[in-house]
This record gives sequence, structure tokens and C-alpha cells, in this order.
Amino acid sequence: MHTHRGDIQTPAFMPVGTAATVKALYPEQVRQTGAEILLGNTYHLMLRPGAERIERLGGLHDFMDWQLPILTDSGGFQVMSLANLRKLDEKGVTFRSHIDGSSHELTPERSIDIQKKLDSDIIMQLDECIRLPAEKEEIERAMQLSLRWAERSKTAFNNAPGRALFGIVQGGDNNELRAISAAGLKEIGFDGYAIGGLAVGEPQIVMFKVLDEIIPHLPQDRPRYLMGVGKPDDLLGAVERGVDMFDCVHPTRAGRHGHAHTKFGVINLKNARHKDDPRPLDENSPNPNCRRFSRAYLNHLTKSEEILGAMILSEVNLAYYQELMSGMRLAIENGQFADFANKTREGWAKGDMAAL
Amino acid sequence: MHTHRGDIQTPAFMPVGTAATVKALYPEQVRQTGAEILLGNTYHLMLRPGAERIERLGGLHDFMDWQLPILTDSGGFQVMSLANLRKLDEKGVTFRSHIDGSSHELTPERSIDIQKKLDSDIIMQLDECIRLPAEKEEIERAMQLSLRWAERSKTAFNNAPGRALFGIVQGGDNNELRAISAAGLKEIGFDGYAIGGLAVGEPQIVMFKVLDEIIPHLPQDRPRYLMGVGKPDDLLGAVERGVDMFDCVHPTRAGRHGHAHTKFGVINLKNARHKDDPRPLDENSPNPNCRRFSRAYLNHLTKSEEILGAMILSEVNLAYYQELMSGMRLAIENGQFADFANKTREGWAKGDMAAL
Repeated sequence: MHTHRGDIQTPAFMPVGTAATVKALYPEQVRQTGAEILLGNTYHLMLRPGAERIERLGGLHDFMDWQLPILTDSGGFQVMSLANLRKLDEKGVTFRSHIDGSSHELTPERSIDIQKKLDSDIIMQLDECIRLPAEKEEIERAMQLSLRWAERSKTAFNNAPGRALFGIVQGGDNNELRAISAAGLKEIGFDGYAIGGLAVGEPQIVMFKVLDEIIPHLPQDRPRYLMGVGKPDDLLGAVERGVDMFDCVHPTRAGRHGHAHTKFGVINLKNARHKDDPRPLDENSPNPNCRRFSRAYLNHLTKSEEILGAMILSEVNLAYYQELMSGMRLAIENGQFADFANKTREGWAKGDMAAL
Repeated sequence: MHTHRGDIQTPAFMPVGTAATVKALYPEQVRQTGAEILLGNTYHLMLRPGAERIERLGGLHDFMDWQLPILTDSGGFQVMSLANLRKLDEKGVTFRSHIDGSSHELTPERSIDIQKKLDSDIIMQLDECIRLPAEKEEIERAMQLSLRWAERSKTAFNNAPGRALFGIVQGGDNNELRAISAAGLKEIGFDGYAIGGLAVGEPQIVMFKVLDEIIPHLPQDRPRYLMGVGKPDDLLGAVERGVDMFDCVHPTRAGRHGHAHTKFGVINLKNARHKDDPRPLDENSPNPNCRRFSRAYLNHLTKSEEILGAMILSEVNLAYYQELMSGMRLAIENGQFADFANKTREGWAKGDMAAL
């Protein structure tokens, strides 16, 4: 993908910079993991410090000192999961802030307006995302509303120069509704197509089935973005099915909770087996943080709830995610994706090195 | 000062690596601020992860990946301020851990043993530190006990090759008792002399008066270390009086609370005046973190309690402390200390730049 702030190799994983910071990393550390694009959260930023304030301060890139591309979500997902929701109707949603209880309105037009003020490079339409499982009628209602909001978003976006606008396919786990959503979005015409309404509580197999069905309905020449996903094996399975972009808070959140993602799978550093282990996480990792600190030290930091533990493990996880993405890109180029996926899964299945 | 792990320019400020980490900084960041020696806390480390464990793992330097000198305290001060104290007698102290309630004993001999296991370069004697104000009898009792513990510490230390042992002058705010303590310690003979029992609640003027009285009693050719001090103006006043070494958690703790130490004095980034301020903390600072992030961004991070806010401001404060120390060293070399001190104090008194 090409943007005026730089190219993005796909498939790409976007670290999440919720409140204008990828938690516990300096921006240059995020860059050094290989990330070429970040995600910013409209909901969090509109509440604090506020879109108009960020605009006055020169936009989100300058504000957080990240000069590469930024994709912003529409705010809808978090309004529905975090805020005290007051009303959702054709016009939009009104809600109370989870921070101070203040009242706010989010409409398709206001969401686009905010994202432009943030100086976002890739703007998402406002949609309604519902939890699964849900009744077909409810899924259909939300999908049709999202489609009408897509149309309004396109109008409000107004071909803003230098920016891209993505539509969001809804329709839950219903193939027919997903197809209607995709067709409707294609008719409106977007720079990219996101698959929303997944990773909302359904098993991985349901998510993969939806991807199998929906991907063929999306244009070949436009990026496909699976929102809010996921763990490493979600990424592998989704790229296998044709997804180009991902975002997820999981790697940084897991890092703050003492979990490291590695080629051995997930390692819980709080586990007592690491207490006396002088070995690093992975002495063959390309990431210095995986080689320099002992498991015993990481166990100590995480048990002691030291900030440095969160810093190291968030970095380790983001770096592993980027290593995985770059491995997938290389495998795709060389026509060896199946082989790469098998080897990677074998490594995870084999698990961590034996305890001392 | 010369150690086999490197030279230390004095006057020196030692960042505190309480639990085997200087909170919210990578070791190389601590080094880059100019720090040449760290302080490690015996009390915290003996409880978690344990001195024997750190010894098995190769010592504190390898454990936390800090290869320059480390000074460890004796554990006494924190036993008395943090632990559930059970008994203090001639032999030592028994106490319960503030972490898990487990029972422990700390004697002069055990403290030396632990500090050797940590592979400390500069070892402190166990002493009894009491809060001020206190009755003369109580100050005298604790001072005399500390002197007997000093003797036992020297015996237990047994001229460990490659390590140094410091004695600690006690005696509260009583000049006569301080002089007796200093004379007793000199008679035993130490590699350096610490001034303990200050920064325990007394006004700065009391601390400076004690320094004025006690410094002439300490050997000219041995480092003088003022324990647990302090804020920038404490350091300036104490160096003026002949102190060579300091440690304090203040710069990192203040950083975690949203306070930045600068040549303009202390700046509280949580203050609403910074909300819309695009200016950096100090555009002429040698520290990149002081130049790159706006006050508005730092206000946002601190108000949002983001880890990155703690990371940046802890680094900013440690860097300012080292800048101050190096300024003092240069001024001493050039015979311009009074001039440097005046200018520095004028800068602090002038305060922060005007609000926008």
C-alpha cells in the first residue's frame, strides 16, 4: 500500500496506539520492531485530549511523534463496548464518556470530521458492531444501518486528498448478510474493505468460516482489513484466507500481563518455572530484548509489577508479531506460504524449551 | 573514584534501582543520562528475588544488565521504614516482609553477606537510622549501636578484594554525637564515609547545619556520601558543603507523578496550563526527550496515566540530575562553583516560561 507518509508492506500488523501512545514503548521502538503503520482510537482521542485540540497541535503524527501512516477507527466499536450508551438511532449514537461522564454524539459525519482533524491517513466509516451470537434480524438491522452510514461516510469524506476511506463489511456469521454488505460497499466504492464484527466472542473456527465466505466477495485490488484481530495463529489463518491488514491490542496487553509471544508459543513469565532460569527467552531471536534478559529477571520484573517488565514484554510481543508478518510476506513472495505456516504452527505446538 | 568496574566522577548522583531496575528505564537509558553507578536496595532484593538467587544467577550486574559499579545499601533503613518490625537488639533486627509476611533477620554480618552475594562494588554497613526530631538519649543509643555494628561489619567484610566498605555517621542533629560517631568510624577505618539519618523529615536548614558541622570531621581523601538525598537544591547545597555522593528515588518517583525537573525548576505536567501548549519542556536542553515532545502531549500522557509518561519524565529527571552533577563538576574544576550555584538557583527561582 502506498500513502504519502510512506509505503506499507502487506500483510501488515498495526500496533494500537490507543491514547496517542503504543503503551509502554517509545515511538522509535515501535518503528524498530518493523511496524510501518499505527492504529489510533477515535473514541479515546475525541474524549481526551480531544480532536480539536490535536488538530490545533498539528495532528496526531506530530502530537505523538510518529511520522509514518496512521489508520484511525471510527470510534463506533468502543462507544458500544466502553461508553455508557444513551441512544443509537439512524442519525448516530449519543453516549457518556467513561472518563468523566460528559455527553457526546458520534455520527458518520462527525466521525469523519474527527478523523480528518486527527490527520489520519486511513479513515474508517462509522458502523454498528454487535456481539455474536445474535439473532439474524438483529444482525441484518445493524448491517443495513452500517451500509447507510457507509454511504453518508463516503459523502462526508468527500475524496479528501492524501487520505483513504475504508468501508466495513458487517453481517455477523450470516453469509448471505455478509454478501449483501460487501456488495453494497463495493457499489459505494472504497479505498479498502474492512471485515468488522469478528473477534467479538465467537470461536476461531466461526471467524475463519466467515473469512472463507466473505473474502471472494471483496475486490482483489483493494486491501482487506480484519479489525481487532488477533493472536498469532489468528493472523496466520487469516492471511492464509487473504487478509492484508490487522490491528489488535493483544501484544501490548499480554506484555503488561507478563506474557511473551515467541516462536515457542506463549510464555507466561510469572510462572514459577522461570524463577531460577538464567536462559533468555529465545537466544536465536533477532530481537535483542529476547536475548539479553534472563527468564529469571523477567519473572522477577513481572512478579514485582515493575514498569520495565511491561516495557520489555510489550516490545518483545510487538517485535514477534512483526517478525511473523515479515515471515509471511517472504513466504508469499517465494510461494512457500503453506510450508511457512506449517513450520510456524509446529514451533508453537512444540511449545517452550524444557524447564531446567 | 576508581572501581574495577569503572571510574566514577564526583560529585556523583546514583539513580536508585530499587528492585533490580531503575523504574521505567532500560539500563542503557540510565547509562545515557550520564550515570556511572547505581544504587541497589538490599531490603527489596533479599525479599524478592532473594540474595542467594541473584548470586546463582551471576550477581546483580548480570541480572539487570548493568555492568558499571553498583552500591548497595545495608537494608537497615528500609527494614525500619517498610517492614513490620519485630525486634531490634544488639544482634540485629528481625522483621516480617511487607510482601508476604515472611520472617527475616538482618544482622551486620548477614547484611554484608547479602551484599557480597549481590556482587556489590560498594557495600554499606548496617546501621540504625531514626526519625528526627528525637530525644538526645535515643539518638545516642542508636548512634552507639551503629558504631558497634560498624565494627562487626568491618570484620565480616574482611577486606573483600575488589569491593569497598563504607561506614555510616549517625547522631541525628546533635553535633557532639555526630563527632563521636565520625571519630569512631575513622578509628575502625572505611573506604568511604556516609552521612546517614538525614532526609528523614527535618527541614533543609537542619540538614545543612549538620553537614557544616560534620564534614570537617570526615577524611579529606575518602568519598563522603549523603544517603537518600535529595532534590536538586539539596544536591547543590550539599556539594557546596563537600559531599561527593548522593542517591535518591525522587527523580524517578517525581517522573511517575507527572513532575519534570528542569533548569526552570519543577514543572507539574498535570497542570491544565500545559493542555494546549505546543512547546517542549526546554528547547535548549541537551536531552532529546526535553525537546521532542510537547507539553500538551506530556500533559495528555500524565493525565491519562500512560506508562510512556512515566518513562519519559523519569528519564527527563534522571538526565537533569546528571546534567546538574556534571555542571557542578565542571564548575569545581574551573573554580567557579559559587557562580554556577548562583546561576542555577536564579534559573529555578525565575521558574517556568510564561504560559501561552
